[in-house]
Amino acid sequence: MKPAEKVKVAVVGASGYTGGELLRLLAGHPRMEITAVTSEKSAGSTVASVFPHLASLLSLSFEALAPNAIAKRADAVFLALPHTKSLAPVADCLAAGKRVVDLSADYRLKNPALYETWYQTPHTRPELLREAVYGLPELHRSEIRTARLVASPGCYPTAAILQLAPLVAHGLLRPETIVIDAKSGVSGAGRSPALPYHFPEAHESVEAYKVGQHRHIPEIEQELNALASRRSRENAIMIAFTPHLLPMNRGILSTSYCRLKKPVDAAELRALYRDYYKGERFVRLQEGNSSPNPRHVRGSNFCDVAVFADTRAGWVVTVAALDNLVKGAAGQAIQAMNLMLGFPEEMGLLSPGVFP
Amino acid sequence: MKPAEKVKVAVVGASGYTGGELLRLLAGHPRMEITAVTSEKSAGSTVASVFPHLASLLSLSFEALAPNAIAKRADAVFLALPHTKSLAPVADCLAAGKRVVDLSADYRLKNPALYETWYQTPHTRPELLREAVYGLPELHRSEIRTARLVASPGCYPTAAILQLAPLVAHGLLRPETIVIDAKSGVSGAGRSPALPYHFPEAHESVEAYKVGQHRHIPEIEQELNALASRRSRENAIMIAFTPHLLPMNRGILSTSYCRLKKPVDAAELRALYRDYYKGERFVRLQEGNSSPNPRHVRGSNFCDVAVFADTRAGWVVTVAALDNLVKGAAGQAIQAMNLMLGFPEEMGLLSPGVFP
Amino acid sequence: MKPAEKVKVAVVGASGYTGGELLRLLAGHPRMEITAVTSEKSAGSTVASVFPHLASLLSLSFEALAPNAIAKRADAVFLALPHTKSLAPVADCLAAGKRVVDLSADYRLKNPALYETWYQTPHTRPELLREAVYGLPELHRSEIRTARLVASPGCYPTAAILQLAPLVAHGLLRPETIVIDAKSGVSGAGRSPALPYHFPEAHESVEAYKVGQHRHIPEIEQELNALASRRSRENAIMIAFTPHLLPMNRGILSTSYCRLKKPVDAAELRALYRDYYKGERFVRLQEGNSSPNPRHVRGSNFCDVAVFADTRAGWVVTVAALDNLVKGAAGQAIQAMNLMLGFPEEMGLLSPGVFP
Amino acid sequence: MKPAEKVKVAVVGASGYTGGELLRLLAGHPRMEITAVTSEKSAGSTVASVFPHLASLLSLSFEALAPNAIAKRADAVFLALPHTKSLAPVADCLAAGKRVVDLSADYRLKNPALYETWYQTPHTRPELLREAVYGLPELHRSEIRTARLVASPGCYPTAAILQLAPLVAHGLLRPETIVIDAKSGVSGAGRSPALPYHFPEAHESVEAYKVGQHRHIPEIEQELNALASRRSRENAIMIAFTPHLLPMNRGILSTSYCRLKKPVDAAELRALYRDYYKGERFVRLQEGNSSPNPRHVRGSNFCDVAVFADTRAGWVVTVAALDNLVKGAAGQAIQAMNLMLGFPEEMGLLSPGVFP
Repeated sequence: MKPAEKVKVAVVGASGYTGGELLRLLAGHPRMEITAVTSEKSAGSTVASVFPHLASLLSLSFEALAPNAIAKRADAVFLALPHTKSLAPVADCLAAGKRVVDLSADYRLKNPALYETWYQTPHTRPELLREAVYGLPELHRSEIRTARLVASPGCYPTAAILQLAPLVAHGLLRPETIVIDAKSGVSGAGRSPALPYHFPEAHESVEAYKVGQHRHIPEIEQELNALASRRSRENAIMIAFTPHLLPMNRGILSTSYCRLKKPVDAAELRALYRDYYKGERFVRLQEGNSSPNPRHVRGSNFCDVAVFADTRAGWVVTVAALDNLVKGAAGQAIQAMNLMLGFPEEMGLLSPGVFP
Repeated sequence: MKPAEKVKVAVVGASGYTGGELLRLLAGHPRMEITAVTSEKSAGSTVASVFPHLASLLSLSFEALAPNAIAKRADAVFLALPHTKSLAPVADCLAAGKRVVDLSADYRLKNPALYETWYQTPHTRPELLREAVYGLPELHRSEIRTARLVASPGCYPTAAILQLAPLVAHGLLRPETIVIDAKSGVSGAGRSPALPYHFPEAHESVEAYKVGQHRHIPEIEQELNALASRRSRENAIMIAFTPHLLPMNRGILSTSYCRLKKPVDAAELRALYRDYYKGERFVRLQEGNSSPNPRHVRGSNFCDVAVFADTRAGWVVTVAALDNLVKGAAGQAIQAMNLMLGFPEEMGLLSPGVFP
Repeated sequence: MKPAEKVKVAVVGASGYTGGELLRLLAGHPRMEITAVTSEKSAGSTVASVFPHLASLLSLSFEALAPNAIAKRADAVFLALPHTKSLAPVADCLAAGKRVVDLSADYRLKNPALYETWYQTPHTRPELLREAVYGLPELHRSEIRTARLVASPGCYPTAAILQLAPLVAHGLLRPETIVIDAKSGVSGAGRSPALPYHFPEAHESVEAYKVGQHRHIPEIEQELNALASRRSRENAIMIAFTPHLLPMNRGILSTSYCRLKKPVDAAELRALYRDYYKGERFVRLQEGNSSPNPRHVRGSNFCDVAVFADTRAGWVVTVAALDNLVKGAAGQAIQAMNLMLGFPEEMGLLSPGVFP
Repeated sequence: MKPAEKVKVAVVGASGYTGGELLRLLAGHPRMEITAVTSEKSAGSTVASVFPHLASLLSLSFEALAPNAIAKRADAVFLALPHTKSLAPVADCLAAGKRVVDLSADYRLKNPALYETWYQTPHTRPELLREAVYGLPELHRSEIRTARLVASPGCYPTAAILQLAPLVAHGLLRPETIVIDAKSGVSGAGRSPALPYHFPEAHESVEAYKVGQHRHIPEIEQELNALASRRSRENAIMIAFTPHLLPMNRGILSTSYCRLKKPVDAAELRALYRDYYKGERFVRLQEGNSSPNPRHVRGSNFCDVAVFADTRAGWVVTVAALDNLVKGAAGQAIQAMNLMLGFPEEMGLLSPGVFP
């Protein structure tokens, strides 16, 4: 019996933290083989010189992005470019007949006007927006399987959507009461040095930023409203969303608050969550009073979720923890690609978190 | 001209982080002199052996608490004992005619039934509760000046009350919409080792705890409702409050969310806050889009506050940062004692934060 | 073709950080299957409750240690008990015919008198000491293959021995000039809370401890002298060794200094190291001026090594980085067990480090 | 009695971490008043916008450096410019008749050839080198009192010299055996963002750098050899020096190793250190087995020192801890200026460390 052949994949924009994480995870994937890695600023350098943790495990070198050159050597492409830089390369890769998972925000919003508002540049490929699938497998598994283009969600939206989806899908919450207070490790800001991420500034430090103005807001609202409208044509969800920068390398903790239309007790809420996520390999509901913590998902593709009922004050509080570079980026992208390529969804993604 | 005489002060329960901070700040106070320090577990040890940072600056030794012995050597007493342990010692010190600032929660709640509910033990000195003054100088300055007993607020309430007071005092917010998402450094949990605070557990880690159940909730509600009722007999504030443990030594960042009864724009909100805190030496309102950060108040008695209007979604977001051991504990207690002793309120408390 | 059968393994003392790391790595091992896990203090608890990062991946529960019960369910045993607690259980497992890798220090020192001096308790099984193999595959590969009992080295010795072995084996260094200044993350101190490891004490903190008195000293000297004596009967190595506690979770960085008998230039030194470690899968020599850093081996079994020549002052400086819980504990133990069981040495151990 | 008048001081290059620390400490100095602060890149900005921790405490704005303009408004000048940028401004300030403390390395090395070798630029003011005094008060107190120009030592040299001076001054150590393994927090690298100091790179990370090549080496050797030669014309000290970058904001821990010419026991060593540093306000010798730790000097001007005898292996190990921005920079500069201006040496410098 000869081992199954591997699918050749390229990683475009591979010298940042998300790119590095794709390389780390793909290095151990049984059915994918990295054949090309691109980086404008590191073109010509070996992967090991940019990512010493991968030394002796990957012997590739970075090259500048040339879609045609990539197309010859890969059957599927991951793009981890900055927002607004992915519009054209995605189109090129699709034109060359490749399966594409794009990790930028460029194909996530269905409404190009919304894209222009939040990213302050027009969307140049609105026709591709229509076919792009929002790459959260827990919500869009079947569309992902047949997609040519998957727009893989960001770290904050993955946590926010997964922690609220059961309440929204059941039409339980009052749409005007949703607050999401999110906390992120610094790797979420990327690998380019800047003062807010300079160690002595970011250490022993915590700060709210872009209060009510973060670009992840519209995709969270898009997905929650889509879920709500399946049931009741409701389309009224607007969230208060405040991200915070925390003094840690990896991890998102998202705490959400909402009021329900009618009281539901803690046990019912948990049952509802258990039922909603039954069979989901990467969503782990917490038992009892245990509380999700990024330390338990570090380096892994899990999203740990808990729901609490504050019956005294009348709020439901949900908490989600994930690794921003894995379930919030590279792992989720591979999960989608597994689906697109007909592999088991969890292939290459079941490594436990690294604790402590 | 001879220098003014110093008031002799005792610090009871001085071997924890709050106690150590009282010693640090009092060591430099121009008009207070520490004459006795107590600690049950460190009795007999020098201050320098328990707190090497104070070596060569303080030459006292810890003794076991004996109120009469203390009373002979001190004119004023700070108590930094654990919650529920302060009930009797406070009464003893008052009986001996001392001015008392108590840093525990034991005399903060006006309603003894509420104390029993949240601290699960009856309040044994309800008569003293009536005269105790909640020690937040920005709200209760004049009562503090004449108080025998001040109950100094905890770290979370100080941030929460200061960040919301202007909105509440003006009757602007809808009382059922208040969410407070608070983040604390680990020193807030005290100096006793336990698994959640063991370095490898607490580092690269963030966790919500006691969701909707934290003991600081009733004092926040008590003070906000008192403020609200001055205006309109409203007494309806119940908050959603979730504290989080962050991987840093010191600092509280408190993010609050609420909806207003009618829209107020960002400029008006800022003007309202500026006006409310005019002349307050320890409340620093942030300009422009700058966001409070505990790194800027580390070791200092300032509370930095900002208010943001999320006009899109209809929320007002306020952010407050303070050092949990200074404005959230020892510094605030000294601020109150300064008032009680007729000293300038800011005496000994104007050292800048230590950044980075 | 049916997949190769798995060997049943037990992990004794599995609720600490080293135990947890054995579970993490074994969960993904293609040829080993965990059939029993013991812990005195967590007996009765599920693995997931003690190690939430392993939830949904391992469904075992801890049991109290009963060697006979273990012997029935496992063919090979890892013991991760505290020093001095492993003496009897190792003997019991061997008596039951199991292959044993012991991660404590109990069987590392060939000389029982030395054990008694440093561990302050007599060695009760000196006859087993004689057959125990020091489990550093890079030095003792062939003996490990046929061993019944492997004494897996600690984290500091692994770094110290690997960084100095090429110089010692070639008889280049002056034995009285060796200084080893080692730095460790806090997980090296175990999972039991205590004041030095309490977050606010260990964060923003670095401290030398047990200067010249750490128990890892005699095994470093034993192994270096054994290497030296193969060549020249020299047996004179005594090291200055100072461990330091660093504010990070994982990782050892070991910096050693020595003078050579005659000058050797940087290029020769590097060539000598390259040659010595040719074919070693887990020793990665650094190129150019790049410097080993635990961040590049986090969660992985690699030991990164560099050698520098300070020709001005006449010193050779070597630097080694490893993950104290992997190459410094659990990974190394599995590497040895792979050899004992006839599996490829690197099986289950080639995951890249998790960076950042 | 009217309060003593304040001396007007300028801080040149005040927008980095060292500059910020000068501002923090001078803000509380009873006899110095900051009248001018310069920064090329922040010219025009308020101090509070660059250093929010100083908001409400200092109301100055940065200006570009113009020595004549400064000279009119200040009687004494601190310069905290990068190495090689201080040569001309120092000369200008002296020419204008000001007392100068320079915190760069530009006037520390007596031998201009050595300066050229290590800083790779010729020294343009060798005549001033001759009169510059190396600003370590514990060694050069009397020269500092009468100096026009003090070259304030760097952080590593302060620790290294103070920890070894007693041994060197007594001619006890063998000069070819000195190893100094130094560890620094990241603020030592300054406030300019760069990849090695980007939070996710520097956190959970420790790295040796510039092995045997750090520019602080020659000043350590200069001062130790000067001390040695007072006694015996020995001039043979060359050190092995390796700095390491640690994941913390502030602090230096320096561990030195040396062999003695003849055995001296631990008690004698301690007595010798106690005697050598008798009366020194800022050197705190540790008692018993307690070990210096930067956490105990954070924000303060103390240098904590311990000496250990490893009689088994024949080494003496000394450990020194200081805050790199205070005793290793700004505090030490103020200590020297106090001496130059005839103030008590410790004026404005006795604040305890901020722990935790």
